Amino acid sequence: MIGSAEEYIERLRSYKREIYVLGKKIDNFADHPNIRPTVNAFAYTYELAKTRDEFAPYSDLVGEKVNRLNYMNKTPEDLMARFDYQRELSKRMATCNYRCTGCDAINAIYPATKALDEREGTDYHQRFLKLLKEIQKNDYACTAALTDVKGDRSKRPAEQRDMFLHVVEKREDGIVVSGAKVHQSGAFAADVNFVLPTQTFKQGEEEFAIVFAVMPEDEGVKYIIQNTGVQAKQREDGEFEPGNVKYGDRTTCMVVFDNVFIPWERVFIFEDLKAARDVLNYFAASHRCAGAACKAGFIDSMVGAASLMLKANGLENVAVLQQKIAEMVAVSEGAYGISIGAAAKGYKANDSWQPNQYMANAGKIIGVEGFTKSLVNLIDIAGGIIGTSPSEFDMKGELGEKVSKYMSASEKFTPEQRMKIVKFIEFWATSSHLIGAVHGGGSPAASLITLRFIMDIEDKEKAVKNCLDL
Amino acid sequence: MIGSAEEYIERLRSYKREIYVLGKKIDNFADHPNIRPTVNAFAYTYELAKTRDEFAPYSDLVGEKVNRLNYMNKTPEDLMARFDYQRELSKRMATCNYRCTGCDAINAIYPATKALDEREGTDYHQRFLKLLKEIQKNDYACTAALTDVKGDRSKRPAEQRDMFLHVVEKREDGIVVSGAKVHQSGAFAADVNFVLPTQTFKQGEEEFAIVFAVMPEDEGVKYIIQNTGVQAKQREDGEFEPGNVKYGDRTTCMVVFDNVFIPWERVFIFEDLKAARDVLNYFAASHRCAGAACKAGFIDSMVGAASLMLKANGLENVAVLQQKIAEMVAVSEGAYGISIGAAAKGYKANDSWQPNQYMANAGKIIGVEGFTKSLVNLIDIAGGIIGTSPSEFDMKGELGEKVSKYMSASEKFTPEQRMKIVKFIEFWATSSHLIGAVHGGGSPAASLITLRFIMDIEDKEKAVKNCLDL
Amino acid sequence: MIGSAEEYIERLRSYKREIYVLGKKIDNFADHPNIRPTVNAFAYTYELAKTRDEFAPYSDLVGEKVNRLNYMNKTPEDLMARFDYQRELSKRMATCNYRCTGCDAINAIYPATKALDEREGTDYHQRFLKLLKEIQKNDYACTAALTDVKGDRSKRPAEQRDMFLHVVEKREDGIVVSGAKVHQSGAFAADVNFVLPTQTFKQGEEEFAIVFAVMPEDEGVKYIIQNTGVQAKQREDGEFEPGNVKYGDRTTCMVVFDNVFIPWERVFIFEDLKAARDVLNYFAASHRCAGAACKAGFIDSMVGAASLMLKANGLENVAVLQQKIAEMVAVSEGAYGISIGAAAKGYKANDSWQPNQYMANAGKIIGVEGFTKSLVNLIDIAGGIIGTSPSEFDMKGELGEKVSKYMSASEKFTPEQRMKIVKFIEFWATSSHLIGAVHGGGSPAASLITLRFIMDIEDKEKAVKNCLDL
Amino acid sequence: MIGSAEEYIERLRSYKREIYVLGKKIDNFADHPNIRPTVNAFAYTYELAKTRDEFAPYSDLVGEKVNRLNYMNKTPEDLMARFDYQRELSKRMATCNYRCTGCDAINAIYPATKALDEREGTDYHQRFLKLLKEIQKNDYACTAALTDVKGDRSKRPAEQRDMFLHVVEKREDGIVVSGAKVHQSGAFAADVNFVLPTQTFKQGEEEFAIVFAVMPEDEGVKYIIQNTGVQAKQREDGEFEPGNVKYGDRTTCMVVFDNVFIPWERVFIFEDLKAARDVLNYFAASHRCAGAACKAGFIDSMVGAASLMLKANGLENVAVLQQKIAEMVAVSEGAYGISIGAAAKGYKANDSWQPNQYMANAGKIIGVEGFTKSLVNLIDIAGGIIGTSPSEFDMKGELGEKVSKYMSASEKFTPEQRMKIVKFIEFWATSSHLIGAVHGGGSPAASLITLRFIMDIEDKEKAVKNCLDL
Repeated sequence: MIGSAEEYIERLRSYKREIYVLGKKIDNFADHPNIRPTVNAFAYTYELAKTRDEFAPYSDLVGEKVNRLNYMNKTPEDLMARFDYQRELSKRMATCNYRCTGCDAINAIYPATKALDEREGTDYHQRFLKLLKEIQKNDYACTAALTDVKGDRSKRPAEQRDMFLHVVEKREDGIVVSGAKVHQSGAFAADVNFVLPTQTFKQGEEEFAIVFAVMPEDEGVKYIIQNTGVQAKQREDGEFEPGNVKYGDRTTCMVVFDNVFIPWERVFIFEDLKAARDVLNYFAASHRCAGAACKAGFIDSMVGAASLMLKANGLENVAVLQQKIAEMVAVSEGAYGISIGAAAKGYKANDSWQPNQYMANAGKIIGVEGFTKSLVNLIDIAGGIIGTSPSEFDMKGELGEKVSKYMSASEKFTPEQRMKIVKFIEFWATSSHLIGAVHGGGSPAASLITLRFIMDIEDKEKAVKNCLDL
Repeated sequence: MIGSAEEYIERLRSYKREIYVLGKKIDNFADHPNIRPTVNAFAYTYELAKTRDEFAPYSDLVGEKVNRLNYMNKTPEDLMARFDYQRELSKRMATCNYRCTGCDAINAIYPATKALDEREGTDYHQRFLKLLKEIQKNDYACTAALTDVKGDRSKRPAEQRDMFLHVVEKREDGIVVSGAKVHQSGAFAADVNFVLPTQTFKQGEEEFAIVFAVMPEDEGVKYIIQNTGVQAKQREDGEFEPGNVKYGDRTTCMVVFDNVFIPWERVFIFEDLKAARDVLNYFAASHRCAGAACKAGFIDSMVGAASLMLKANGLENVAVLQQKIAEMVAVSEGAYGISIGAAAKGYKANDSWQPNQYMANAGKIIGVEGFTKSLVNLIDIAGGIIGTSPSEFDMKGELGEKVSKYMSASEKFTPEQRMKIVKFIEFWATSSHLIGAVHGGGSPAASLITLRFIMDIEDKEKAVKNCLDL
Repeated sequence: MIGSAEEYIERLRSYKREIYVLGKKIDNFADHPNIRPTVNAFAYTYELAKTRDEFAPYSDLVGEKVNRLNYMNKTPEDLMARFDYQRELSKRMATCNYRCTGCDAINAIYPATKALDEREGTDYHQRFLKLLKEIQKNDYACTAALTDVKGDRSKRPAEQRDMFLHVVEKREDGIVVSGAKVHQSGAFAADVNFVLPTQTFKQGEEEFAIVFAVMPEDEGVKYIIQNTGVQAKQREDGEFEPGNVKYGDRTTCMVVFDNVFIPWERVFIFEDLKAARDVLNYFAASHRCAGAACKAGFIDSMVGAASLMLKANGLENVAVLQQKIAEMVAVSEGAYGISIGAAAKGYKANDSWQPNQYMANAGKIIGVEGFTKSLVNLIDIAGGIIGTSPSEFDMKGELGEKVSKYMSASEKFTPEQRMKIVKFIEFWATSSHLIGAVHGGGSPAASLITLRFIMDIEDKEKAVKNCLDL
Repeated sequence: MIGSAEEYIERLRSYKREIYVLGKKIDNFADHPNIRPTVNAFAYTYELAKTRDEFAPYSDLVGEKVNRLNYMNKTPEDLMARFDYQRELSKRMATCNYRCTGCDAINAIYPATKALDEREGTDYHQRFLKLLKEIQKNDYACTAALTDVKGDRSKRPAEQRDMFLHVVEKREDGIVVSGAKVHQSGAFAADVNFVLPTQTFKQGEEEFAIVFAVMPEDEGVKYIIQNTGVQAKQREDGEFEPGNVKYGDRTTCMVVFDNVFIPWERVFIFEDLKAARDVLNYFAASHRCAGAACKAGFIDSMVGAASLMLKANGLENVAVLQQKIAEMVAVSEGAYGISIGAAAKGYKANDSWQPNQYMANAGKIIGVEGFTKSLVNLIDIAGGIIGTSPSEFDMKGELGEKVSKYMSASEKFTPEQRMKIVKFIEFWATSSHLIGAVHGGGSPAASLITLRFIMDIEDKEKAVKNCLDL
């Protein structure tokens, strides 16, 4: 089913969840000012799916069209469509679409459980398919949680057991888990959260090698909403003060698992080191690759903002500034191109189509560099006003007339319009997106380490040896 | 006199000013939560001046020691001491010291008025000296305002007269001016504001070629405080939530001049194109050069934060992360080195010692690149938590114990301490400092244009010609 | 037909051509020491075509398999295979394959002449197909010439007519052309040279808007071989002195057209501004995109060399150096990924499949940056010895034993082997490849200008407007 | 004494030295085509010393004026004058001045031996002063040798003793040493070579901890000239073919010490780990700092070349290209500024004035980045012709008239002049200067490691702690 934004929001309003904002448990979370922008972003994924066929593929599993972000990709074209969707969402919302990690998780758990069952004769894959059907049929919004809080990085997980999500009890009907995850974008506003390991584990650390799905309503699950970046402004009642008032800054949370019971039907990997590693590898490549398409969309949004700002300032004909925009377009198309190349040169893995691992990691590296460069270009183009502007409240306040007058520039834009653009660019420059670009899908260093391990160095040495008759 | 922080604050409390926050005129501005961090920063300049002799030079003009930031530099050593002070303040406060532009203005108006009087037989220089004496004797906090709001950049000033500060009436006892300035860091909390032109002007545009001092109490002067970046958080009552709770984000304002009367004794350049250009050139070189020392101090602060974060995470022995810190140190010392080099290779101009113009502009370019690189390194080192962290309110709230537990890492730091570091780095990544680095002292493009005009290309062509016998 | 290296070389030996080296016309050019490496590179394209099916596609036009570089691409897969071939050749030879421009020309002239005939009712396309059949059947090596010498860039072509290739006479049986082209990689060792315009022209400049094929044997065609970079060393009889002794540095030439007669059957565009622009646009996108794959292959070669050097020095376990190699892999895979993405998201144009223009230009930008970064990494990894090493002649000379001893390092490599690697990296650092990376397919600025013209800025502005309800 | 170029060359012609080029011992080395450009460069240092007073300071040691490069610096001004001299030489010659390392060695051995004698009661310092007097009186050209061949880097020196210069015999009248050094710029054409250790050593490795002076005539000293980069071209008899025909590419050599006897009077440190480390530290800081000034001069030369090329091409009014030149000026002035800053903020050490260590290392990092950026800018500005140009031999050869015609551009330059500029830029792009920029004074990694060890991290942490009340 292709769900609607209304259905999603209605469903959300019916849920009871333990969500904390600024130290207090909140009610009616779906309409809470700190959470509403995230809800809007989720909602927009439903709306956009209706605009283009390739965002709503037909699923054999359920015999109907489903949201592309709940789909298990089988072909290069599937993967390209998914990256197109990703770029489009990022461009249009200037923030996270939140369902991206859910899609990565589905496309990682599917092949990993299939291989696990083949190896061990278990039935994890069937359990997963059962949930996946439900997800596809109801167009549930899914997210995924990887990063454990980790505590002291100089210690192994077992030395500080509770800093990593782990099994505290194995029961007949399921397992009980404890620990905490961070960086969970939008988990509090999803229907389903997949839980995956944050790293590979060694023998003796099996208790951490687990994969399962948690429902936000499950007892003992607690969400603590971030309070960073432009977040605080969200609470204002201003119309355009936070810059991206509709969709807001990427909003994550810490998820505490306080002895949470997970029935076996939602456990997909249980204390299996290899399968946990598989799932992590699939997820990482998928998420880094989607991240490149996401950065492309973000840069698109910055390009649009830069162009509007030049026009609002009467500077649209200055060649050197237009060239700076072209530089931004180059990195946007470059990052997107890599994700598409990764889809085209991907590989089959247990029915699924996975992105090319080299390019997935290259996409991460070039995406971060491109995002940073674009952000600095955008700031340069926009002028100092994006860091010093009065507020909409000033424009409507006691000195409103004067503020409006002095905020005006090109006659093609009203002062309000120009200020909205200023605040939008201020949002880009001061939101948590730069942090997200660096750390989303793991740090650049993580991608370089992956490349070190997978690069076929012998092939390249051989080419040189042939050249030199060595 | 070397004033004290207490005296400055007391003085501030005695002033009546027209200051607007979020559209409303405020009372008791010196203690207003949005303004208090700026006041703290000004206050700290007084405290630090007492710690090192070279921050409190002896002034012949008044026959006593004065604050280095109110001093007119006469030697290379003066300029070096000024840059040392600048770096130290930036490092210790992680924000603007606000008196920097005042110092630049003093060192620009002095030689420009001296030359003007010699050329025209006027007495502007004496007027200026009279005010300067008062400033030095009372250790007044001074700032300077350059940037006009500018309106539509495709038009000349005369086509949109009121978008540039200009003379509306010339009277026997003074002049009346109107217009608005933006990007005025801390002007609302200073004793004296110098007002300088934002650009050079052509014949027929003399009405804009003016330099004067305004007292914030003058009738018709209105300050509209910015509402950007982490500004909004300032209003919280959190102890460390805004990251840099004591000194805050750089706080600027729009200054509206609503037919403000300026007596002749505070007018230092009146409708003189050449003198206005001189003052602008002196100011720009001085401010860009101070900006390089300032970026060095900012990077120092980031270096300190990065090192503390590694320790708090138990990662202090990871070589590749330590190397990233060393890269930050390299750009900090590089930017600082350029400012010192500019002082050493400066030049005498009408009694004053001015920084080397080539290096001043090079310092701007390399300072921006270094700041950006350092910021990305800092984000990379610190981890994603700086963009996703719960708040101090969560740590003190209903789930406080759990939040504390899961925010803890190395035993050498309490969870509160670690969170303070997290929030401080979040501040660096999401404040307006990146914008300030790009645009403070003018955009990088402005420095490149200056270099194009001053570079001695013939000397370099000649060297090549000699090499090639051309 | 898939030709053999032997056939190609034999054919070459049978040709009579006017080729000049160091001011003198040479004989037996195919075996001349300055030209032999280029011949080897051409020859290797024949050898490699036999190793993988996708390098030898079936051509409907001639009803047999043909070399991928003589093929007109019809599908995304065709284009991907071409880029795979390109990368492989660059990786294996560490230099130009020389047939790349021929392939770009075929894929540009084909759709442009088809459109031209449809528009004008002419038969240029049939003429072209006739030659293309011959090329495919005989597996001729083709190159293409674009860049005119241009003279004084501040003048239009008509003001310095002879600095641009142009029509000097239109006859019944053909045309007579005059002028000169530069940067012609390998033209002197090809079977066929396509001649294309270097830029777009305005009305009144039709004489320059021509496309045709020249045979190097045509009377009046003169090739002047470059004498740059490591070229001079080619003349030594040393075995490994020039670093890349087999395939050499990219070798170009100036081609002088001294009143050359071209029969109509080899004229494909005659004084048609639009068709000339079409051909230029197709060529530019194709060549920039192939350039990204080429840079990937070059970086692969550098990666192989870096890895061998670390092993030869006993440094293969130093993590920070391995990370530098991973950075190189990231840009190689990134540039390659963009070219593949461009193939996947290309478009149909008059039967041909053309690469996505956005990505083609992005690939150029990111390819240059990546190449430069990789080169600096390679130099850094390799150590100063690559700029200071004695020669093979020293190793074989009077002090041979000592030189061998002091050039030795890890026991896994003989001193000769280590020196070969040193000289190969010296080749990378001092050959003309960096210049080629910057200027091949036009300068980065040319790509940015193209992006400025084709970027869909409205789409991006619209996304922002929707975000902001503008 | 301020010697003259003639005296230096005459002296050189009188020496008997064992010098090998391409495997053969040569005679009349001073006039050998591969060595002559180096001799010209040395000679120019004598000429330039006569043009400016600060290049010829008065030495108390000998009671007369001496060449700045043989002077022991006592004040910040001394060091600044030295860096000015360095920049000027690099700018004017576009290559190494070769005496730079000699100057670094003098300024490192002086304070280190003074401290050593104070600590141990030895008389090394007096020995050194005796030689220094001779050097100053005769204006001898000095160079210094650091880098040992090193062999397998995974082994300690003692495991491959002969790969490091070491003591093989201690005699009453002196010591006998054996081993080999590489990267020795111009050593073969100097009067005196100082020999310093390449690294610090541990206890038990004392045999390597030695410092002495060798005369190139000493028995057993063998110089093997490099054969890299544009070196091979030097042998041509063309007037401007090698691009920088007068001064050539930086020419280094391998120096083999085949049981060389060094009398005690020329031994300055003998098997003392601490003193050897001191000398290395002083040398490294001094050389890295001089390297920053040197890069500034190199970039100046590139700036001159870029400007001439634009004029020769008729492109001097294109703003975007002029901006690229301004970017080069920014990094030139930045690197120079850091070296001047390092002089100003240096420190006194046993009578000598040493550069600030932070800035010395920062100068290295920023110098390399700036050099690379400038080189790419230069290539971009100059156009592809610098990688594809015919030679002067073509211009004078059979097709001379045509080549001249097609190489011509702006009428302000003859074709010969334009080609000289082309070849000069080709020289910058294909010489070993990029390698030299990366590795001269040690790799960038070495500077970062130094910064890690010397950075005052506590001071920076403390500033943050104060900010946060930690």
